[in-house]
Amino acid sequence: MTNNTTNGSITTGMTDKHDLISSDKVEGTSVYSPSGEKLGTVKYFMVDKISGDVAYVVMSFGGFLGMGNSYHPLPWKNLHYDKDRGGYIVALTREQLEAAPAYAEDTSPDWTNSQYGSQVDTYYGDLPKM
Amino acid sequence: MTNNTTNGSITTGMTDKHDLISSDKVEGTSVYSPSGEKLGTVKYFMVDKISGDVAYVVMSFGGFLGMGNSYHPLPWKNLHYDKDRGGYIVALTREQLEAAPAYAEDTSPDWTNSQYGSQVDTYYGDLPKM
Repeated sequence: MTNNTTNGSITTGMTDKHDLISSDKVEGTSVYSPSGEKLGTVKYFMVDKISGDVAYVVMSFGGFLGMGNSYHPLPWKNLHYDKDRGGYIVALTREQLEAAPAYAEDTSPDWTNSQYGSQVDTYYGDLPKM
Repeated sequence: MTNNTTNGSITTGMTDKHDLISSDKVEGTSVYSPSGEKLGTVKYFMVDKISGDVAYVVMSFGGFLGMGNSYHPLPWKNLHYDKDRGGYIVALTREQLEAAPAYAEDTSPDWTNSQYGSQVDTYYGDLPKM
């Protein structure tokens, strides 16, 4: 099956270990629009502790309406990681983000209630998939 | 006094949103042996930033050989989340953990090199899957 030759390079297929990031270091990763405009930065991921899948990327989005930063959960499927830019790309305009479900920094919705996630999924359900 | 059945319960399939945890709050989650012995606590997850899958759970494992804490990366597939205990179960003995790939606290292996992950995978490859 696999040929782990000491001399040749080991190919692990689609999931190269080069792409691993520590969960305590995801904060600060940039989020861009497809045209390259920086929309915000990652605050944290919401991870399913049973399946081990990232469900949402919570992005800090500043300066909106003169308020402090707001936190926008983005469904994982709407994001694409761009290796060249070293950040995530999301096909959203500022207007779409401003109308999206969000909460104030240093607060948290009740993620233990599935209704909050459903609300986020419903909003982004009609938006283009990356 | 929760009544989640106002209009019938919402079933989201295997991935219930109740199981979400913020990536900045995974630290401290307990890791147990199948018999219920506490082996250590989670320090962080190693997440594939392209696929959004957790690849390894890095567990802090104390008191081994009188040294400080050591960090043990455990492949995700070897762990099982136990809702009742609120922690992960791994079918490993202390002896198996002591012989496993590990690094000292406040250090990090070169995760950008796929060889380190391969070394971990190889060690656990022969151990029972949960």
